[in-house]
Amino acid sequence: MPGAKKSSKLWDKGFETSQQVIDYTVGNDHILDRKLVKYDCLASIAHARMLASIDLLTNDEVNQLDTELRVIMAMDERGEFIIAREQEDCHTAIENHLTERLGDVGKKIHTARSRNDQVLTAMRLYCKAELGNIDELARLLIDTLESFKAKYKKVPLPGYTHTRKAMPSSVALWSGAFIDSMQDNLSGLASVRDLIDQSPLGTGAGYGIPLPLNRKMTAKELGFARVQENPIYSQISRGKFEAAILHQLSQIMFDLNRMATDLIMFSMPEFGFFKLPKEFCTGSSIMPQKHNPDVFELMRGKYHQLVSYEFQLKNAMANLISGYHRDVQLTKEPVMNGFDITITSLEMCDLVMQKLDVDTKRCQEAMTSELYATQRAYELVQQGMPFRDAYRQIAKEFSGPQ
Amino acid sequence: MPGAKKSSKLWDKGFETSQQVIDYTVGNDHILDRKLVKYDCLASIAHARMLASIDLLTNDEVNQLDTELRVIMAMDERGEFIIAREQEDCHTAIENHLTERLGDVGKKIHTARSRNDQVLTAMRLYCKAELGNIDELARLLIDTLESFKAKYKKVPLPGYTHTRKAMPSSVALWSGAFIDSMQDNLSGLASVRDLIDQSPLGTGAGYGIPLPLNRKMTAKELGFARVQENPIYSQISRGKFEAAILHQLSQIMFDLNRMATDLIMFSMPEFGFFKLPKEFCTGSSIMPQKHNPDVFELMRGKYHQLVSYEFQLKNAMANLISGYHRDVQLTKEPVMNGFDITITSLEMCDLVMQKLDVDTKRCQEAMTSELYATQRAYELVQQGMPFRDAYRQIAKEFSGPQ
Amino acid sequence: MPGAKKSSKLWDKGFETSQQVIDYTVGNDHILDRKLVKYDCLASIAHARMLASIDLLTNDEVNQLDTELRVIMAMDERGEFIIAREQEDCHTAIENHLTERLGDVGKKIHTARSRNDQVLTAMRLYCKAELGNIDELARLLIDTLESFKAKYKKVPLPGYTHTRKAMPSSVALWSGAFIDSMQDNLSGLASVRDLIDQSPLGTGAGYGIPLPLNRKMTAKELGFARVQENPIYSQISRGKFEAAILHQLSQIMFDLNRMATDLIMFSMPEFGFFKLPKEFCTGSSIMPQKHNPDVFELMRGKYHQLVSYEFQLKNAMANLISGYHRDVQLTKEPVMNGFDITITSLEMCDLVMQKLDVDTKRCQEAMTSELYATQRAYELVQQGMPFRDAYRQIAKEFSGPQ
Amino acid sequence: MPGAKKSSKLWDKGFETSQQVIDYTVGNDHILDRKLVKYDCLASIAHARMLASIDLLTNDEVNQLDTELRVIMAMDERGEFIIAREQEDCHTAIENHLTERLGDVGKKIHTARSRNDQVLTAMRLYCKAELGNIDELARLLIDTLESFKAKYKKVPLPGYTHTRKAMPSSVALWSGAFIDSMQDNLSGLASVRDLIDQSPLGTGAGYGIPLPLNRKMTAKELGFARVQENPIYSQISRGKFEAAILHQLSQIMFDLNRMATDLIMFSMPEFGFFKLPKEFCTGSSIMPQKHNPDVFELMRGKYHQLVSYEFQLKNAMANLISGYHRDVQLTKEPVMNGFDITITSLEMCDLVMQKLDVDTKRCQEAMTSELYATQRAYELVQQGMPFRDAYRQIAKEFSGPQ
Repeated sequence: MPGAKKSSKLWDKGFETSQQVIDYTVGNDHILDRKLVKYDCLASIAHARMLASIDLLTNDEVNQLDTELRVIMAMDERGEFIIAREQEDCHTAIENHLTERLGDVGKKIHTARSRNDQVLTAMRLYCKAELGNIDELARLLIDTLESFKAKYKKVPLPGYTHTRKAMPSSVALWSGAFIDSMQDNLSGLASVRDLIDQSPLGTGAGYGIPLPLNRKMTAKELGFARVQENPIYSQISRGKFEAAILHQLSQIMFDLNRMATDLIMFSMPEFGFFKLPKEFCTGSSIMPQKHNPDVFELMRGKYHQLVSYEFQLKNAMANLISGYHRDVQLTKEPVMNGFDITITSLEMCDLVMQKLDVDTKRCQEAMTSELYATQRAYELVQQGMPFRDAYRQIAKEFSGPQ
Repeated sequence: MPGAKKSSKLWDKGFETSQQVIDYTVGNDHILDRKLVKYDCLASIAHARMLASIDLLTNDEVNQLDTELRVIMAMDERGEFIIAREQEDCHTAIENHLTERLGDVGKKIHTARSRNDQVLTAMRLYCKAELGNIDELARLLIDTLESFKAKYKKVPLPGYTHTRKAMPSSVALWSGAFIDSMQDNLSGLASVRDLIDQSPLGTGAGYGIPLPLNRKMTAKELGFARVQENPIYSQISRGKFEAAILHQLSQIMFDLNRMATDLIMFSMPEFGFFKLPKEFCTGSSIMPQKHNPDVFELMRGKYHQLVSYEFQLKNAMANLISGYHRDVQLTKEPVMNGFDITITSLEMCDLVMQKLDVDTKRCQEAMTSELYATQRAYELVQQGMPFRDAYRQIAKEFSGPQ
Repeated sequence: MPGAKKSSKLWDKGFETSQQVIDYTVGNDHILDRKLVKYDCLASIAHARMLASIDLLTNDEVNQLDTELRVIMAMDERGEFIIAREQEDCHTAIENHLTERLGDVGKKIHTARSRNDQVLTAMRLYCKAELGNIDELARLLIDTLESFKAKYKKVPLPGYTHTRKAMPSSVALWSGAFIDSMQDNLSGLASVRDLIDQSPLGTGAGYGIPLPLNRKMTAKELGFARVQENPIYSQISRGKFEAAILHQLSQIMFDLNRMATDLIMFSMPEFGFFKLPKEFCTGSSIMPQKHNPDVFELMRGKYHQLVSYEFQLKNAMANLISGYHRDVQLTKEPVMNGFDITITSLEMCDLVMQKLDVDTKRCQEAMTSELYATQRAYELVQQGMPFRDAYRQIAKEFSGPQ
Repeated sequence: MPGAKKSSKLWDKGFETSQQVIDYTVGNDHILDRKLVKYDCLASIAHARMLASIDLLTNDEVNQLDTELRVIMAMDERGEFIIAREQEDCHTAIENHLTERLGDVGKKIHTARSRNDQVLTAMRLYCKAELGNIDELARLLIDTLESFKAKYKKVPLPGYTHTRKAMPSSVALWSGAFIDSMQDNLSGLASVRDLIDQSPLGTGAGYGIPLPLNRKMTAKELGFARVQENPIYSQISRGKFEAAILHQLSQIMFDLNRMATDLIMFSMPEFGFFKLPKEFCTGSSIMPQKHNPDVFELMRGKYHQLVSYEFQLKNAMANLISGYHRDVQLTKEPVMNGFDITITSLEMCDLVMQKLDVDTKRCQEAMTSELYATQRAYELVQQGMPFRDAYRQIAKEFSGPQ
């Protein structure tokens, strides 16, 4: 059917758009959007109910839409709801499905809505859910770190500054630092969840909808804490909110990057403080002896992926006038990838920290005399010597070759 | 005096460090640190009092230190406290000053403290103060925008999407978007202020101090909400907290970038919606007719400075093991510059928005028919036509040459 | 078969690696590596021949390997060579295929080679090929721009500075700027192609191979200009060379970003200088009148994707000691995506510039008097008035409201 | 004199610009521009001569200007040519000086020139000179590394992959890698020097000058390889060329970052391969025993400053239409700072590599058996065993605890 491709787009006006243009503009939205099908359906159900409440749909129409949208959600859960490339995105695929099944009723679902506020709403719901998952994983990691800390609470570790032995530390102090930092990350997560917890549904293309919508009703039904009243704000918050999310994720990944860097170095046989179980190590294609900490190296490296995604959002949305631009489409992938990176890395970190061994003997052997130089200076201080003089006296002992 | 230079460093051990090394490592700390003198003095006063409370200083010594530190603060306020390049930083300059004036008592101020926790404490106090300033300026801007919104509340504006006329908007809607966004920025600011509101004083070089310090006492005296207990966390939060601050500033500057971009475009004579008073315009060295919106262009451009500072911090601190590294020194300048950029830009934005004119006539003339196409489709919807059919009917009218 | 999964990895040592670890570490290499199958086969053929030349393979073994590798290349061209997730990457899939078909002969192909130099070699060959494609596309675009320039050579355009009318310009001057810039981009491309045109094959895991390899032979066979002699350099050039490539691509995309920004603005009906044919425009889901320049918006936005990829490489590889790290695996995707972005954007730009219309009448109408103010000042200069005085005299005429 | 401030700006039109606007817009140009005084004078001399050649100045006028511009250059060399904040930049300060000394003749120097092409020309000359300095320093470092390599040519080093001992390496191999990489950096530097070696003088504000200038004459006199013919290209190359420069500097700094990271780790007492002379170490304010490698840590950290400057340029100039914008002013500081970072770091690296010690004994002791596992597998290969089988046989020996 020649008209098939044409009629599948929400903005079809009856003339052909160049296929190359379509390929270039659609990109991989039809793949990314698999994550949004559920949320777009939920938003459509809420929207339909609200339309009925202001007499733009009949109750019967709402019921038909509700039923069919739940069919789509069920198909999606089984991996059976397909978004064809020529449909561009999940919103079109869903509207097409509804129209195919319900005829004119399906055509009415887009009433009082723009794809702009649809995408925004689905993305917000998706982001809220993923932030919740990350919150949970971060709490699990805290628990795991607490167990690790308790298990090895008596094991000393050298504390390093400038990558040089500095003062006595301990496994408890080390793991405790990441516990405290992750606790603060939870506050950051809560703060960004609060920020995005406002419903953009009903803002249309960014300038409102000339109909008496009940935006509070849809916001409440979808579990949003409040309505994002100003439609221009809804638009200029795109990219900005996503960047705020990625920033908070980067704070978490920063800690994992740091932890991974510590573990890579201090599990070197030359130090031997930590031991990564063999089932977490990978080998070399050429060197038979190798047990490599790839898991930690990727945890370290993925931080940089995340940061570059944040940076992309922050720059791509700048120097543009208010109002939607297609460039905004490119904000989806960074935020989705950012969630994936953070979730899989938190899971991996949790798993590894459950199994990580500490070699108490190697740790104790590493507690050499220079770690106690400061302590000895303080003993002189407690005997009444000014600190600077005590410092210089002890320093003399260490003034040999570095 | 040949010994003068040597004895000025806190870590002097009696042998010469290469002058080139000193030049390379000191950088411009002695200039940046002017902003920290006040805060380092306040922290030193609190620290001295605490030392007395645990009998490491006598009351008389504390009084001497207190008096002299207030002398330094007064000198600093008059711009008379100089940090010499060879002193490296404010902490050394202050300790040197105290030792010169008070002899052995001055040498005792560094007891139970490392330069690491000194820098951290001074930076935290400084950052808290600057975040307070920014909060205040953001609130002033909100007030100014409210007045602007009220003044032009009846003026329509075309709303654009894809840089094309889309739907009717208004000056009130436009300015309201930035008000709402700035309100949310205030929450973000509060959240990051909470994050950093923990006292690192007493964490030493990152592994604690082997003395029975009363860290709650100094935290309280300095107005911190809580103690940052774990000393390793104090260290690994460096760069991370600064990045969190710069992220929040970038959210503010993002809005100014957007606002500036709107104003540059819509004050073009070709649009003429906004008029920038001549005293805010600059000219061209060659073109006599020019009145250029440099103020907005710099507001737009400075966003990118800020973002690059944030990303510098996020990357410079990565892939490093826990514990202080000298690389951390490089985190001072980005955060200080970030505050300057945001403060001056908020002030400038506030000033300009007080004076900005709106040309009501030009705005009204711009409200052309295509802006109402969606509204007309909705009129058909309200008469019972499915939205997609109404859309296609109206679309036909606009299917001529773009 | 329980052993199946284990035996598929090049570094299998007979114990199980955690499935979650495998999932986390493999990532999407098995998908990305589809682009490398051809190049890994070519490198393997060259490598096998060289092994025969130093008597580590017999001629018969080389012939078997050559034949079977060409089978793989043919399968790959038909899209039939599959890399299973559990095989990790193309190198393993190819070696597994050879071993399955050729038994012990297949096992010998990895002689004197590490996966490290295999990946490096395949990536270099792939990058050289893609740089060649981009060179070709850039030259096509130059041709198209030359035609455009010739076609509209008499059409004037206002020249803008500070987004304000400044001085007379023309379509020819505008398009000529991008031609000249693209010419310089070609030099940049050539320079980075020269940089990477050195064969890493034979550097093993980064410390050479303890066998008398003939590296010049493989380099020549694969078309490399020279051998990258130092194996440590081969490793530390990873990420660095890729960043150099992405930088050059960013120079190209910068020009497309600029061109797109010009075209988005000056094809607004308010200006109307350029007209984008309707088949290149996309519509709105809600606003029936819209013809949106999505193609240009994505061209603009994709620049930021590219820059963030460059940035990711530059940061992920920093602060690491010499020698391979698994983090390096993450450099593949940015560079592959960077090529895709640049290739599709150059193609799109070329296509659009072939069809772009110029509205001569609108251009002429836009040539208003202020554009000639400088020229008039120069007329006074030619009559003997110092430039500054002439400037001030003309400026008076334009000192009314902005 | 009330008129003093007003008359000092090149674009003064007789009304006051808000002081706050001036402060915000001038920024620190008056400080940065100290580096450009010499180059602006040279360009002005060439420009004046050219103006005489087309009869816009008399020979006498040129002589007066030439003499006075050389006076300024001499003052500048003595540090006596001051750019006042209210003069905005060096171009204004120089023109004001000329006008003050030469009256009407001074006013004529701006004939046929815009501040835009003045800044561009001065920056290009400055950048060419700094690129020359860096080329020289890079060559010096290569020489130093060659001496280092020769001095320690027999010393073995463990080669690491995944931060784990992998295969035998050597000091010669290690230093050779950086020599080869720096050699390739020289080609990159030459390539970017070629790119920018085109004269923008005569392009005015970006749309040419309506006078019959002889641009080849000024280009030749200033030592440019060619004329940048298209004035729009001159403008759109701003930021782009600077980014190209910073990219090449980042390639150099990337190597220094890597070298520094190696040296920080392998000069740890735990490894002890390298020894940094005490005069290059700095101490701790609290820990008497410390000798810290701050020099290397800053070399490592400064890479990130540079990269962030590059990305600032790449983003600040994006999403803008063609033609000058004031945002462009912000490109000066990143490129100037980038040169400073690279120059001081190359000097420091050269100095340190001259003095760095290698501890042969510690290096030899580190050559443990696992480094030879691959070699032993190859011995089995040379006896006829397929590589994969040999690999597995050797692997068994190392399958104990990691």
